[in-house]
Amino acid sequence: MCSLPVPREPLHRVAVTGGTHGNEMSGVYLVRHWLQAPGELQRPSFSAMPVLANPAATAACRRYMDRDLNRTFISTFLTVRASPEDPYEVTRAQELNQLLGPKASGRAFDFILDLHNTTANVGTCLITDTAHNVFALHLCHHLQLQNPELPCRVLMYQRPGEESYALHSVAKNGLGLELGPQPQGVLRADFFSQMRALVAAALDFLELFNQGMALPAFEMEAYRTVGTVDFPRTKDGDLAGTVHPQLQDRDFQPLPPAAPIFQLFSGEDVLYEGEATVFPVFINEAAYYEKGIAFIQTEKLTFSVPALPSLTPAPTPVP
Amino acid sequence: MCSLPVPREPLHRVAVTGGTHGNEMSGVYLVRHWLQAPGELQRPSFSAMPVLANPAATAACRRYMDRDLNRTFISTFLTVRASPEDPYEVTRAQELNQLLGPKASGRAFDFILDLHNTTANVGTCLITDTAHNVFALHLCHHLQLQNPELPCRVLMYQRPGEESYALHSVAKNGLGLELGPQPQGVLRADFFSQMRALVAAALDFLELFNQGMALPAFEMEAYRTVGTVDFPRTKDGDLAGTVHPQLQDRDFQPLPPAAPIFQLFSGEDVLYEGEATVFPVFINEAAYYEKGIAFIQTEKLTFSVPALPSLTPAPTPVP
Repeated sequence: MCSLPVPREPLHRVAVTGGTHGNEMSGVYLVRHWLQAPGELQRPSFSAMPVLANPAATAACRRYMDRDLNRTFISTFLTVRASPEDPYEVTRAQELNQLLGPKASGRAFDFILDLHNTTANVGTCLITDTAHNVFALHLCHHLQLQNPELPCRVLMYQRPGEESYALHSVAKNGLGLELGPQPQGVLRADFFSQMRALVAAALDFLELFNQGMALPAFEMEAYRTVGTVDFPRTKDGDLAGTVHPQLQDRDFQPLPPAAPIFQLFSGEDVLYEGEATVFPVFINEAAYYEKGIAFIQTEKLTFSVPALPSLTPAPTPVP
Repeated sequence: MCSLPVPREPLHRVAVTGGTHGNEMSGVYLVRHWLQAPGELQRPSFSAMPVLANPAATAACRRYMDRDLNRTFISTFLTVRASPEDPYEVTRAQELNQLLGPKASGRAFDFILDLHNTTANVGTCLITDTAHNVFALHLCHHLQLQNPELPCRVLMYQRPGEESYALHSVAKNGLGLELGPQPQGVLRADFFSQMRALVAAALDFLELFNQGMALPAFEMEAYRTVGTVDFPRTKDGDLAGTVHPQLQDRDFQPLPPAAPIFQLFSGEDVLYEGEATVFPVFINEAAYYEKGIAFIQTEKLTFSVPALPSLTPAPTPVP
């Protein structure tokens, strides 16, 4: 497996970002809380910085103001000369790139953990761009081992050849944490607590790595995006039906050929026409209607993740 | 029980309204479907008119543009002289009042059935303004009898002394139909089908009434609003916690004094300080954060609903 550079030094510059989508409330309220009470994000070798990624959208309780911020961290937007006519999120992506990057530079943050919710029934979902992100996969493995009671699934979101566009891609390493189902604009205590515990466990992992913990090789199941399926639509582009009751809420479950995927308003079923079983995720996510996505098709694979060399223990402050 | 005038004539002018809140998708898509295929709303003695109540908010997939349309059908807004500076929903309320009213006039529609969703776990909830709405309570009773498998609860939403402000109050009689939990912006097939079946059953009831069906007296359990409870907040007005896991999703269940209602971000619980058991509804509804409502307190009462005289059978067209 071709892999991205892995850390050779302790990770000191770490950010935890929430409100990248302004109506995904677990991250919004965790970050707001940590901005007032940052102690929870401190570890002996680093203090993670809480960042409210999209303050305007958060204030308006909307996903975004002008365009989806979490699709904006690509060179087209990050390198263009700033103009007062820029969409709000282009300006904000440039600011975040200055704060946490610049992306792909030596000055970039060591790690970004970006917090999200979805209306889909994904449970706990850990999002990396690709299988090349070996360090992030070690973190995922750690979170899985720490939470044996949770189905804590790893999703490789990026499609082959696609430039990474998510906020966490600004740092040298990063991970998206996606919990659902939670409606937009609603803060559920269960997901709030669960996300808080997962962030704590992630920071603990970074601390263990900084202290020189060895990271042996392992095998891991993960889901990799292979395509997307749009809703059935009328000739005007409006919905002609919605996700079938037999598919709704069944994220990460196998979808075989000829299984029903949509129920038309006329009463008929639409069957899955693919030739192979896929594993749908983000089924009926509210924010994806406008993107033309009723669900994302993934394949379930087993990856061999190589060992990472232990760091020389970093000096820690004497308490 | 003091009661509102009940129909003495067949109900011929009936409207089914959806998209009163533009991100409550069951009603939005049912109405859009019926605008193309109105046959489903026809009965021998009437054809119900589908109305997309808030087209601008529906197009934007938002609850409203400028103010909550379903709080706008009061004389302050309906009788003010129109101005180009009016909020969009004031203009729209006046248009709907012309189309379906005028409210409290002889020219008003006979019945409006207004379709809603909530992020709260209310199941099937039938909303009347008050216990005075005897005809609507007969419809509720019919829907309960037709759907014995559903917990089909009746909520009297209006508080004593409050002017009725909902869209359905424009007609001589009306009912709100509220299904949840469904996230804003999501169309679930199960609620779509359920709402469609409930609307069909409601229209069947109006037809039976028009044909001269006797409506005997009955007793009914219903929930009546007694107050609202806001989220715990910081001195800046921001959330300091959210609905307690032991209260979340327990709409219409008894909440006794000293039960936990909120979990603060600091980790502490907030207990219910009321002196009597109440029955919370609209627990953690996304749209109510801005209204300062974490849940609505109701009392559970038994009402004696009087019989309604049978109409002289209306002439029906020969098929």
